[in-house]
Amino acid sequence: MSSQKHLMPPPAALLKPLSVPDRLLLGPGPSNCPPRILSAGGRQIIGHVHKEMIQIMHEIKLGIQYAFQTQNPLTLAVSGTGHCAMEAAFLNVVEHGDKVLIAMNGFWGERATDIAKRLGADVYQLVKAPGEYFTLEEIEKSLVQHTPVLFFITHGESSTGVVQPLDGLGELCHRHNCLLLVDAVASLGGTPVFMDQQGIDILYSGSQKVLSAPPGASPISFSMRARKKIFNRKTKPTSFYLDVEELAKYWGCDDNLIRYHHTAPINTFFGLREGLAILAEQGLENLWKHHKETSLYLCEGVKKLGLQLFVKEPEARLPTITTISVPKGYDWKEVTEYIMKNHGIEVSGGLGPSAGKVFRIGLMGYNCTKFNADRVLHALEDAFQHCLKNKL
Amino acid sequence: MSSQKHLMPPPAALLKPLSVPDRLLLGPGPSNCPPRILSAGGRQIIGHVHKEMIQIMHEIKLGIQYAFQTQNPLTLAVSGTGHCAMEAAFLNVVEHGDKVLIAMNGFWGERATDIAKRLGADVYQLVKAPGEYFTLEEIEKSLVQHTPVLFFITHGESSTGVVQPLDGLGELCHRHNCLLLVDAVASLGGTPVFMDQQGIDILYSGSQKVLSAPPGASPISFSMRARKKIFNRKTKPTSFYLDVEELAKYWGCDDNLIRYHHTAPINTFFGLREGLAILAEQGLENLWKHHKETSLYLCEGVKKLGLQLFVKEPEARLPTITTISVPKGYDWKEVTEYIMKNHGIEVSGGLGPSAGKVFRIGLMGYNCTKFNADRVLHALEDAFQHCLKNKL
Repeated sequence: MSSQKHLMPPPAALLKPLSVPDRLLLGPGPSNCPPRILSAGGRQIIGHVHKEMIQIMHEIKLGIQYAFQTQNPLTLAVSGTGHCAMEAAFLNVVEHGDKVLIAMNGFWGERATDIAKRLGADVYQLVKAPGEYFTLEEIEKSLVQHTPVLFFITHGESSTGVVQPLDGLGELCHRHNCLLLVDAVASLGGTPVFMDQQGIDILYSGSQKVLSAPPGASPISFSMRARKKIFNRKTKPTSFYLDVEELAKYWGCDDNLIRYHHTAPINTFFGLREGLAILAEQGLENLWKHHKETSLYLCEGVKKLGLQLFVKEPEARLPTITTISVPKGYDWKEVTEYIMKNHGIEVSGGLGPSAGKVFRIGLMGYNCTKFNADRVLHALEDAFQHCLKNKL
Repeated sequence: MSSQKHLMPPPAALLKPLSVPDRLLLGPGPSNCPPRILSAGGRQIIGHVHKEMIQIMHEIKLGIQYAFQTQNPLTLAVSGTGHCAMEAAFLNVVEHGDKVLIAMNGFWGERATDIAKRLGADVYQLVKAPGEYFTLEEIEKSLVQHTPVLFFITHGESSTGVVQPLDGLGELCHRHNCLLLVDAVASLGGTPVFMDQQGIDILYSGSQKVLSAPPGASPISFSMRARKKIFNRKTKPTSFYLDVEELAKYWGCDDNLIRYHHTAPINTFFGLREGLAILAEQGLENLWKHHKETSLYLCEGVKKLGLQLFVKEPEARLPTITTISVPKGYDWKEVTEYIMKNHGIEVSGGLGPSAGKVFRIGLMGYNCTKFNADRVLHALEDAFQHCLKNKL
């Protein structure tokens, strides 16, 4: 057979140089990476179990513990993007037939529902309109009604621009024998989260928002309460790649012995390490304050343009991602495309339940400056002058 | 509660600069990356659904089709390392209760067994000693005996240094109503594989071996026969992140409409694109010939040092990774540590069933040169002079 084989030729498109344009990324993520992080990601790699790599992973673990404000030993980065961390959260804790309650006020509740159902969970939803958040009373009522073992809620709803208050939620869940799982992909570093003090049992985030590192490695942490549920599983998690008790051995979470698990995304870890180092150098309190101030500055500018903020209650606005209602008569796609073409700036439309209804502007980490707020406000003003009202 | 919260201080280890030493990586992977790939990985990022990113993903798809020698539309890179691709292969195809046959002659058969069992498969093993490969007759006998729906085999067994002949295997599996799943992580680009002409139904690889790109994005492809099994599933795959029919919509595998699925590891894709471009520029035939010649050169040198190659049959030796038996009386760990310390070169010990029995030397992609073969031979000679025979 060997002699009869025919070799397909190489594709012409690959024989041209790689082409990557320069963009200012002011959508809901990814954010631009600072030169220090790009330079770290461009360094020559080392082996995934070399002692220097283990040290870098140790530093990542310490950085995540600081960013999450937790002392959980089971704290690490999964080798995938934010969605992958979301799956790792569910698949380690949930077993077939487990009751799971999902707070649904935007896209991430939908995605969480899909993931939990694939794992065979018995899923209930607590629903509110996009742009709103949940009160402790509403959540308690639903916990009593459905008696779930796990409650999922999104801290920073990037599809709607809402920040969910977390105080008292852990205590409430625990009183009802339920674990608290929080998605902090879009909020981490931009608005306060205290994993231990707020009683969060599973917390995950991404690297490409406030941390301004390349996507591909995602922070996650599990409380002892969550681990107890994992220890008592009747079946192994359906994934080896994301089995956190196996990953704990690779990351040396419980002792210093390091056991090979998989080949980590080495350069991506370099970048994440630098993103966490910048966070540690700047200090969480300063970053929270800076994101809040910059988002208030942006919101003032938006109002001055005569545009409406999508989230009515000022305190419920996510400091990292601001949502603006699409004015009647305008085509959101025409506006964002005009801004991309004429200003080289990414401004996004909605996602899921907010699709067609909002513009989303992210000022996160490296991109969180008043100068960038001014740039995007100028671009918006220009776009609304040039994009004609829909003729329908 | 808010006022009572106490902020943990930033960790001291993160306030020091990132430290990454220079290493020549001549183990079983990762390989060193050429400057062109590192430079691509260090470029500023763009959005995950920008048209330029979609073009880069299109080029990656074409590059994988060339590397795999396939015209399968469902060809893409999963957003994770080689292990992640292995899971994607199994979890898309296998449903609870499916019979799966695993060819087991090294570490990867063990890992495949673990993954398939987690998915609820009914797993059978076809076992041979580490260092051996399987004949068509042996495989057919096992297919007849167990009537599996899926047969897994490793093309390049990186734990033992064996290359598995693939000719005739697809036809054989299909005659027995079985899909053929092949792991080509350690072999792709270094030794011939013809996905379509060899009748392989699911093929996956990694980026950090012959492609010499950073780990974190992994090529995978599914035949129409494999897709038919996926279409007929009674349950959704347990992962959304790795659901290939969802990923197909993001990658535009069946039409040109691109739908958001997850945030891809953008810079890692830049690096993978460049790795595939180098492969296309050099040409598969040249790369196969070059790896074969360089490994023969290394094997000659190993024999001249008085060492024994672990794989007895010359034709069964994997051109990318050469295994050397640990000589009696020597401690493999002392030897590899001596080489790392005094020569800055990574040479690995065994893995799984070959642990303690072999040294593993990889000459792959960017690292595949006679100069590197000479360097590692010199280091081995030096190490065996300095590492004393075990006094036991």
